[in-house]
Amino acid sequence: MSSLPPTLQNLIDELSRLPGVGKKSAQRMAVHLLKQSKEKVQRLAAAIHAIKEKLTICRRCFNIAEGENCPICSDPKRDEKLICVVEQASDILPLEKSGAFHGLYHVLGGVLSPLDHQNESDLHLQELINRVQQDQVSEVIVATNPTTEGETTAMLVAQRLKPMGVKVTRIARGIPVGSELEFADEATLARSLEGRGDL
Amino acid sequence: MSSLPPTLQNLIDELSRLPGVGKKSAQRMAVHLLKQSKEKVQRLAAAIHAIKEKLTICRRCFNIAEGENCPICSDPKRDEKLICVVEQASDILPLEKSGAFHGLYHVLGGVLSPLDHQNESDLHLQELINRVQQDQVSEVIVATNPTTEGETTAMLVAQRLKPMGVKVTRIARGIPVGSELEFADEATLARSLEGRGDL
Repeated sequence: MSSLPPTLQNLIDELSRLPGVGKKSAQRMAVHLLKQSKEKVQRLAAAIHAIKEKLTICRRCFNIAEGENCPICSDPKRDEKLICVVEQASDILPLEKSGAFHGLYHVLGGVLSPLDHQNESDLHLQELINRVQQDQVSEVIVATNPTTEGETTAMLVAQRLKPMGVKVTRIARGIPVGSELEFADEATLARSLEGRGDL
Repeated sequence: MSSLPPTLQNLIDELSRLPGVGKKSAQRMAVHLLKQSKEKVQRLAAAIHAIKEKLTICRRCFNIAEGENCPICSDPKRDEKLICVVEQASDILPLEKSGAFHGLYHVLGGVLSPLDHQNESDLHLQELINRVQQDQVSEVIVATNPTTEGETTAMLVAQRLKPMGVKVTRIARGIPVGSELEFADEATLARSLEGRGDL
């Protein structure tokens, strides 16, 4: 017999399904919520509820949107001639935070992965080809992850787009800013040397 | 201008108010929720919503309850002659997990803390005194935290209850099981020596 009221036990179970949340953190969160005002707790519940009611997929770039287009595609200040290709919509967040990119995005929705039966037709690649044709895109930056699958997918994107005459580039791989050579793995160090630039 | 749809930004803001959840974890959780089925997401929202609708405080021990009494007070198998006094309802959870206690609890709802203007009348102490009188309690185990406030509060509980002829005990303080002497602080080591038992 559990010593917790079922409603509380249920909340702990639901919270512990969130990524990075174990039983202990779920308990701490549940106890914290218990101590909050009714208004605050219901604001959280409503915020969660709303994402499935209000959020959609951007028709143009497949980013998360509210309405037809995502906030980035709707922003007239963004450079439409520049497209950054990412695996997942969640990859856009860190890139936006860097403040170093002012073009539009294109979410592939995955990577090539034969083992997971993910092939070219599972990616939003044809839609990218269409955008490059229709919008006179000048450069496509491929920002898939520097994993085996991400690199293979980047090669495929380049293969499909280059014949169209568009410039296709790949984000640099190297030693993270603020880290030390001593702790870098060999593959990263090799990439970092290959990609060296003039001083 | 934020690059996130307002509904998503709002969810991230709400999630990052949870204890131990920073901006990054909140983002990860939000992205995770976006990928879940509508049903799963709404189950979480409903679980959160329910705690303020359904949960109450146990009339007897001030633990969290669903209805008049908490699951522990409602369990006929628990020993009514034994009361464990804790600061907060959340302290009951780890004690229950230990499986070492089969009596009932009493939640004080705080500790003596003159700096925070918390004094005796802010604690559920009179209610504890009433229980000891009415239920012929044989032992009260004081399990307040081993902090200055927790110890002072434990002293007060003992002072109030001992004249009634009930046995009042305090949980042992010492070196945590599985840890090493080398890493224990002096106060804990001193307590551990004081509280030594026969082998």
